[in-house]
Parts: sequence; C-alpha cells; structure tokens
Amino acid sequence: MTATTQPPAPSSRQIRFSGSGGQGLILSARILAAALAEEGLFVAQSQAYEPTSRGGLSRSDLVISDREVEYPLATALDAVVILDQVAVPACAGLLRADTVAIVDSGKVSAPPAGPERIVSLPVTDTARRIGNPRVANIVALGALAGLTDFIDADALRAVMLRLVPARFRDINAEAFDAGLKMAQERQDA
Amino acid sequence: MTATTQPPAPSSRQIRFSGSGGQGLILSARILAAALAEEGLFVAQSQAYEPTSRGGLSRSDLVISDREVEYPLATALDAVVILDQVAVPACAGLLRADTVAIVDSGKVSAPPAGPERIVSLPVTDTARRIGNPRVANIVALGALAGLTDFIDADALRAVMLRLVPARFRDINAEAFDAGLKMAQERQDA
Repeated sequence: MTATTQPPAPSSRQIRFSGSGGQGLILSARILAAALAEEGLFVAQSQAYEPTSRGGLSRSDLVISDREVEYPLATALDAVVILDQVAVPACAGLLRADTVAIVDSGKVSAPPAGPERIVSLPVTDTARRIGNPRVANIVALGALAGLTDFIDADALRAVMLRLVPARFRDINAEAFDAGLKMAQERQDA
Repeated sequence: MTATTQPPAPSSRQIRFSGSGGQGLILSARILAAALAEEGLFVAQSQAYEPTSRGGLSRSDLVISDREVEYPLATALDAVVILDQVAVPACAGLLRADTVAIVDSGKVSAPPAGPERIVSLPVTDTARRIGNPRVANIVALGALAGLTDFIDADALRAVMLRLVPARFRDINAEAFDAGLKMAQERQDA
C-alpha cells in the first residue's frame, strides 16, 4: 500500500474503538478487521501509543472499503465506541450528526457533542456481572454488531471465538451475546 | 491525533514487520510499540487486512517519535523484517540504502533491492528447532533488538513476556533469546 493524501472513497466506512489502556480495544478492532476481510473487504487498522507516563487514552481506528484503502486514517467516523471519558476529546473533529456513538454509561459521564445517536450502555458493568470487567471490549463488540449493519453478528462472533485465547472463549461468547442483546433491545425501544 | 499530510520529523524512526498472514507479525509490532511507549516515546502502529480470498501479505508498521506522531504512515523504513517472499514487493518505495533489512533465509529467496545491509537469518527454521514455527515472530523480534539500537533488548524482552499468553511464555523467551543471539553473532562477524 502506498501512502497518499487522498481522502477515502465515499463508499468506505470508518470505525473507532477507544477508551483507556488495558481495555482490550485494539483486539476488538482487530477482530472486526479480520471478520470484514473474510467478507471480502479491505481494512486498514491504526492505533497510537503514548508514553506510559502520560497514561490514558487507547484507540484503534478501522477504515473499511471494497477497494484497497489508499488513506488509512479516519477522517469522519461512521461509528465510535467509547469506554472511558479520557477518549472523548480525541474524537473531536471526527464526529458527524449521523455517527453512531456507543458509550459506556458507567465510564463516560460527558458524551461527545455532535452525534444525534448516542447509545449509552452499561458495557463494563455487564462485563463485571458476567465475571470479568476485562471482557468489556467484547461486550462492546457485540453491541456494535447489534447497532450497525457493518457485519453479520454471527460471522463476527465466529471470528472473535477464533482470536481470543482458548480458555477465555466461553466468557467472551457470553460477553458478545450480552452486548448484542443489549443493543437489540435498544434498537427495539 | 489529527491526520495531517506532514511527513514525519527527521528524528522519527520507522519500522515494518511483514510476512504472510498468521505469522504473528502484528503482535511483534505491538510488543515493540508497547516497549517504546514505556521508554517515553510516541508510537503509531498501522496494518492492513486484505480480503481473505486474496491471501498472503501481512504487515504492521511503526512510526516512532519523541513527539506526538502527526503522520503515522511509513514513508522510509529504518528497519524492515521480512518473513515471507510475498512481503517483498510491498516494501518497494520504502527502502533506503541504510535500511536494515532482516529477512528469513528459509522463506525469502529474493530479498528486496536497495538496502546495503540485508541480514539473512534462519528465523522460521530456528523457531521450528525450538519447538514451534509460530514463534518465528518472536525470533525476529529478538533479532531486531540485536541488530539495531532502537530499544534495550532486556526491556523489550520483559514487555514481550507480559504480552504473550502465559502458557507460551517459556517458548517465547527461548525464541527471543535465540533471535538475539543469532543477531549478535552476525554483528560480530
């Protein structure tokens, strides 16, 4: 892939997973990227690491296209997952009125301005109830599948089960299903 | 981080891990990125996924800087790891005379043109000898630590042990040490 300064084609989609370090959001993005590649799409993924001393923000962006992705940086998000308040400012400039924003109701007190559709869900609380707050990333992935039409939920779930460590498969399956269910109930409301 | 079209500052460094899908190169890049962030540096990581039906190439690039990385795409590599012939053409345009190119002697029959320093090492063969060809990514990481001054090998090794699954820690430690030793012997030659 050659770096260019062209913006993405209008047919492309852009998705961000963001929160604080250690929430496993890069893995969530990687699972979605792998699942989309299996569906025949091109996906560019990027993330940034700050000096540990600055703490905090973790984010991974996907740019998806039916053609090779010439410009792999997010410019306007179709969807964003925000699991920590620290990640809110970093979204500024990337949000539109029709961005779907999924925010963790227990971790984000002031959602970003801009999107008309902000879906506040108890992501980490749900992970904790299932048995481990560390599967919040997979609860969020299930919720994203339920709230958007980016990918078939069953296909995404199958790739997820292949990419998480074998001994955490059951709890991640439960986490994904809980996130999907929460999202579907919200869709029906 | 805001996307801009500025090239990286001259103080930045760019590193690519590349090969074929399933070789674990994205993890190698992630380990190095995390280790550099612990040393107080900013790191941007990017990778691209192609439709599975096209098979083949996997690559992850790091752009490292002592300031926030404004342009996270590789433009000229300081070092490149190539574990499969399929990854050679994708490096075209990113190589300089002083790029350090580490290539798997068992997997790359025609190394890229350009770099004066091409270090051909039996990366996958070494992983196989240790017990599992899947740790080739960590053999390569150890070799990179031994052939460059990007990061202290002990610091990198410690982060690696934290990021690989617990039950594969021993074999990955052995893989890292074998790669480092191979590289050091090559440095002395």
